[in-house]
Amino acid sequence: MDLKKLRVNGKRLQETIEASAEIGKTANGGLERCTATDEDKQGRDLLMKWYKDCGCEVVIDEMGNMFAIRPGKNRELGAVMTGSHFDTQKPGGRFDGILGVLGALEVMRVINENDIQLERDLIITNWTNEEGGWFAPACMGSGVWAGNITKEWAYDRMDRDGKTRFGNELERIGYKGDFPADYKKWNIYGAYELHIEQGPELYKEKLQIGAPKGILCLHWYDVYLEGTANQVGPTPMVGRNDALLAFSEMNIIVNKVAHQMGNMVATVGEIQNHPNSRNIISDGVHFTVDIRSWDDDHAIEAWKMMKREFEVIAQRRGCPIRTEETWKVEHAPFDKELWDRVVETSEELGYSCKRMISGAGHDMSEVNKVTRGAMIFVPSINGRSHVEIEDTPWDDCERGGNVLLQCILKTANEI
Amino acid sequence: MDLKKLRVNGKRLQETIEASAEIGKTANGGLERCTATDEDKQGRDLLMKWYKDCGCEVVIDEMGNMFAIRPGKNRELGAVMTGSHFDTQKPGGRFDGILGVLGALEVMRVINENDIQLERDLIITNWTNEEGGWFAPACMGSGVWAGNITKEWAYDRMDRDGKTRFGNELERIGYKGDFPADYKKWNIYGAYELHIEQGPELYKEKLQIGAPKGILCLHWYDVYLEGTANQVGPTPMVGRNDALLAFSEMNIIVNKVAHQMGNMVATVGEIQNHPNSRNIISDGVHFTVDIRSWDDDHAIEAWKMMKREFEVIAQRRGCPIRTEETWKVEHAPFDKELWDRVVETSEELGYSCKRMISGAGHDMSEVNKVTRGAMIFVPSINGRSHVEIEDTPWDDCERGGNVLLQCILKTANEI
Repeated sequence: MDLKKLRVNGKRLQETIEASAEIGKTANGGLERCTATDEDKQGRDLLMKWYKDCGCEVVIDEMGNMFAIRPGKNRELGAVMTGSHFDTQKPGGRFDGILGVLGALEVMRVINENDIQLERDLIITNWTNEEGGWFAPACMGSGVWAGNITKEWAYDRMDRDGKTRFGNELERIGYKGDFPADYKKWNIYGAYELHIEQGPELYKEKLQIGAPKGILCLHWYDVYLEGTANQVGPTPMVGRNDALLAFSEMNIIVNKVAHQMGNMVATVGEIQNHPNSRNIISDGVHFTVDIRSWDDDHAIEAWKMMKREFEVIAQRRGCPIRTEETWKVEHAPFDKELWDRVVETSEELGYSCKRMISGAGHDMSEVNKVTRGAMIFVPSINGRSHVEIEDTPWDDCERGGNVLLQCILKTANEI
Repeated sequence: MDLKKLRVNGKRLQETIEASAEIGKTANGGLERCTATDEDKQGRDLLMKWYKDCGCEVVIDEMGNMFAIRPGKNRELGAVMTGSHFDTQKPGGRFDGILGVLGALEVMRVINENDIQLERDLIITNWTNEEGGWFAPACMGSGVWAGNITKEWAYDRMDRDGKTRFGNELERIGYKGDFPADYKKWNIYGAYELHIEQGPELYKEKLQIGAPKGILCLHWYDVYLEGTANQVGPTPMVGRNDALLAFSEMNIIVNKVAHQMGNMVATVGEIQNHPNSRNIISDGVHFTVDIRSWDDDHAIEAWKMMKREFEVIAQRRGCPIRTEETWKVEHAPFDKELWDRVVETSEELGYSCKRMISGAGHDMSEVNKVTRGAMIFVPSINGRSHVEIEDTPWDDCERGGNVLLQCILKTANEI
C-alpha cells in the first residue's frame, strides 16, 4: 500500500469534534471545559472510550495526563508522540487543543482501519490543564512531565476563586493516576502537535498550513497594590491612595513599554479590585502581566522597565506594591528536521504553507525540551481564539489532519 | 426640671453600639450587615425589641423603613424625626448610620427615664438600604419615602451578583410592611440626623462637632466598554481592542478632570472585567463613576467633559462605549434655622464646633427635600469610614448624643 496516498476522514474528524463540542457547550456555541471540573471528567471519559475502541492501552499518570498507546513493530525504538489538550478556557472555543487531540485520534483510526504496522509505537496524548484559565499556570501537565515543575507544587495550585486545590479536584474526578508524571519513564523519538494558529496571519494571508519554528517565551507576573479605603464623598482628591487609579497608570505603562521596545506582546488580562464598591476608594488591586517574545532577555528587560515605572507610580500614589514572578517559559525553538518535515509534507500534499512563529504557548514548548518536536497550524477565522466564537473551517481541519498523518507515517517508520 | 441640664448616658450608648456590633461582626472588627440579608433581619429584630422596651409604637412601611413613635402632648402638631440607617457596607464599620439610630434611641431613653412630656411626637427612624453597597442605589428607603423613586423600581433592583431582587429579599426577612412608604402620610416639623463625619476634617483639626450646611450632590454613572477577546500571544499589539486598557485611560481622565475643575471629588470604585483571564485580551469592562460637588451644574459639566474624552478613547481603541446615568441626587442645603441650632447648641454645651459641608450622601438629603432637616457630625478617626476599622472615640459619640438630645428637646417643645 502506498502510504503517501493515505488521507484522514474529514467527515469523521468533524463529527468527532462536534461530539466533543457537546461536553461543556455554552449558550454562545463555545465550550467551557476547565481542568478538573465535571465537564473535564466527562470529556476524558469520552476520550477513554474512543481510545479503547481503537484498541489502545491507556496510561494515566499522576498529573492526569492521558497516553493512548498503539504498539509498533520494534518496541525498543522510541515512540512517536502526538496530541494536545482537551481542556478549554473559561469559556473558550471548540478547537483550541481539541483539534490536536482528535486529529491524532483520527490519524490513529486511519492507520488502524488500513491495518498499517508502524515501526515505532504511536502515542496520543491529552495533556492536563494546558489552559491554566481556572488553575494557573498553563501547561501544568506537560510541565510536570518535562520536569519543569514538581507535581507537589502543581497539586497545591488554587482555582481562580481561591476555593480548592488542583490536586484535590483531579482526584475527585478520578483522573489522578499512579504512573509517574516523568518523561524519563518514556522513550520518545519525536513529537508533533496539530493546533489552530490562534492568531490572524494564516487567515489574513489565505494560507492553509503554518509551520512554526518555535514558541515565544512566556513570562507571567502578578502585581499586588495596597490603597487606603475611604468613603469617596468626604475624602478630598489630594491625599488619596487609590489602588485602582495606580493600577490604571500601570496598565498604560505595560502597553507603552511593549510598543516602545517592539518584538513582543505584553498584556494585562486579569484584575481583582477590593472592595470594588462604587463609593469606596480602592484599597487593593491584584493584576497580572503577560509578556511574550522570541527573545527571553528582551522580555526580561521589558519587565524590568515596567517594574521601575510601577514603583514610581506606587510611590507617588502612596500605594505599596509587591510583585511576583509567577511563571516563566523560555522561548522554544522546535526541532529543525521535524519543522522542515511539516513544510515539505504540506508541499507534497499541495497545501499552501508558511514558516512562522507561535505567539501562544503550547504543551509542545514543554515536550520539545525533552525530545524533538514540531507543530502544525491551521487558520483561525479572523484570528479569534480563547473565545466562544473561535472557529476553523472543516476543510482546514482536514488538511491539518493530513499533514499530521503523513508526518507521523514518515517519522514512525524511520528506523 | 431644667431640660438644659439633661445629658445622654454615654456608657449606655456605648454598650448599645457594642451590642449592635455583634450582629454581622467581621474578623477584622468591622460589620457586614447589608440590606435585606439575614444579618439585617437580626439587627432589625434587636431594634424592634429596644423600641418596644421604650414603649414605642413601631410602624414598618412598604420599604422596610422603621418608625418608632413616642407620642407628644399635642399630636396634631408635626413630629420631630431623628435617626439614620442600621445597614452597612460590605464590609463596613460599626458607626456609620448606626450611631444615628442608636443615638436617637439613647435620646428617647433619657427622655423616658426623666418622664418628660414633649409637646410634639418624637419619631426614631431606621431607613432601609442607605448604603446601596449590596443593592444599588443608596438611600433607597428614604428615597421612596420622599417620592424621589418609586417603590416598584426599588423592589426590582438586583443585588451586586445579579441573583435576586431587593423586593423579594425584603419580604424574605419579614420587613416588607403594609404602611405606605410616603412622606405625605406623616406630619413632620423638623428632622435631625447624628452621623460620623466620614472625612478627615474634624479629626485633623481636633474639633468635636461638625454642623454641615448640607450635602454635596451625588451623581452616579455606569460605563460599559466592549473589546475583542483574543489569545494574547498570537495577537499583535497593533490592532487590539483591549477594553481594560481603554478603561485604564478613562480612569485617569476621571481623576484628571476632578483635579482640573476643582470643587468636586470624582472616583471610579468598581470595575468588572471580562473574561478576566491573564492570557485573554479583555472584551468587556463595566465601571462606575461617582461625582460629587456642592454645585450640581459643575458636576454635570465635569461628566460631560469626561464623557467627551471617554468617547475619543473608545474610538481610538476600537472599544464601543455605552454610558448610563444611574443615579442623581442634587446637592441638599439643610434648613438654616436647624443648622444654626446645631451650632448654637454645641456652643452652649461647650463643644468645639465647625460649620462644614458633607461629602457623603445621607438619608437626610432625601428627608430634607420634604421637611426641614439638619445633621450633627462627630469625628472619624483618621477620616476612615466604609472600612472595618472605622472608629469614633466614645466621648465624641456621647457629645454628639448630647447635641442631638438638646436640639430635639428644643424643637419638640416649640409650639
